[in-house]
Amino acid sequence: MLGIDPGLTRCGVGVVDVAPDRSARLVHVGVVRSDPGAPIEERLAVIAAGLRDVVDAHSPQVVAVERVFAQHNRHTVMGTAQASGIALLIAGERGLPAATHTPSEVKAAVTGYGSADKLQVQTMVARVLRLDALPQPADAADALALALCHAWRGGAAAAASGPLTPAQKAWHDAERLARR
Amino acid sequence: MLGIDPGLTRCGVGVVDVAPDRSARLVHVGVVRSDPGAPIEERLAVIAAGLRDVVDAHSPQVVAVERVFAQHNRHTVMGTAQASGIALLIAGERGLPAATHTPSEVKAAVTGYGSADKLQVQTMVARVLRLDALPQPADAADALALALCHAWRGGAAAAASGPLTPAQKAWHDAERLARR
Repeated sequence: MLGIDPGLTRCGVGVVDVAPDRSARLVHVGVVRSDPGAPIEERLAVIAAGLRDVVDAHSPQVVAVERVFAQHNRHTVMGTAQASGIALLIAGERGLPAATHTPSEVKAAVTGYGSADKLQVQTMVARVLRLDALPQPADAADALALALCHAWRGGAAAAASGPLTPAQKAWHDAERLARR
Repeated sequence: MLGIDPGLTRCGVGVVDVAPDRSARLVHVGVVRSDPGAPIEERLAVIAAGLRDVVDAHSPQVVAVERVFAQHNRHTVMGTAQASGIALLIAGERGLPAATHTPSEVKAAVTGYGSADKLQVQTMVARVLRLDALPQPADAADALALALCHAWRGGAAAAASGPLTPAQKAWHDAERLARR
């Protein structure tokens, strides 16, 4: 399961292996960066290349991307939306299903409540993955939390069980539509 | 000069050849579509493939993309922003400089005033390119207008004159920064 916290300057990436009993193992965590002084087209190409490297290295079965809202900070929201488009594109180009989750869905899945702060998310991610230290930076912890959230909400079970039954597929499609 | 009017369902593309005397010739006009019922990651991959086909077929020197604003229609703005990210990414991956222009800059460049309506833009694009009919659909006309706008604002001259002088490069970089 690959989680991506999209951003133009720092794009958090986290890969986890989730077992059917919901236990999870850290596979990779990192941040793909682009130079804020570079032209936007070059920055997006750097982010795409960095995300493709992660997909190539770890062969995730599913990609989860944090959902961006138009009403958030206007100065950065367009860049974040563009980076999220790149993340989803790379999933699509590799034939991987993608899902988006809101920050509060992620916080609720990982800590038990939707308004948890960053430290609480980092702490729970470290506990679940049995890490000796908090995952750093926060973007990377968010990406891991996103991957865990998606796995626990059914994504891992669906991916691990192979082809979906017609009923599972119908449910999955309906859920995807509802998330748009 | 390739102009792209980004959209998830319809992405307008227009390629024009612009001479130093500002006269222009239509090279290609079209719309890249994606199925509104398909998952977002597949839609973005379809749009990316369609845009790459246009770049491969016509080898533009510069890509101009309509700038998306966060405050516009919230239901579609995220998809439009993601599509614009894909358009800019493809420029970046091919090493092509990209520029963004606002709709009012485009209207002002093509018709002489920034609040022109769609029919006025289509009419002027048809006149400039000596077309027998109005370019259809409107997304395609907008993409052609965008390409003309960018060419007339200095993009074509810069691209045609080969490597930039240091002063031109500094101006170009400053302009790019200001447009973010």
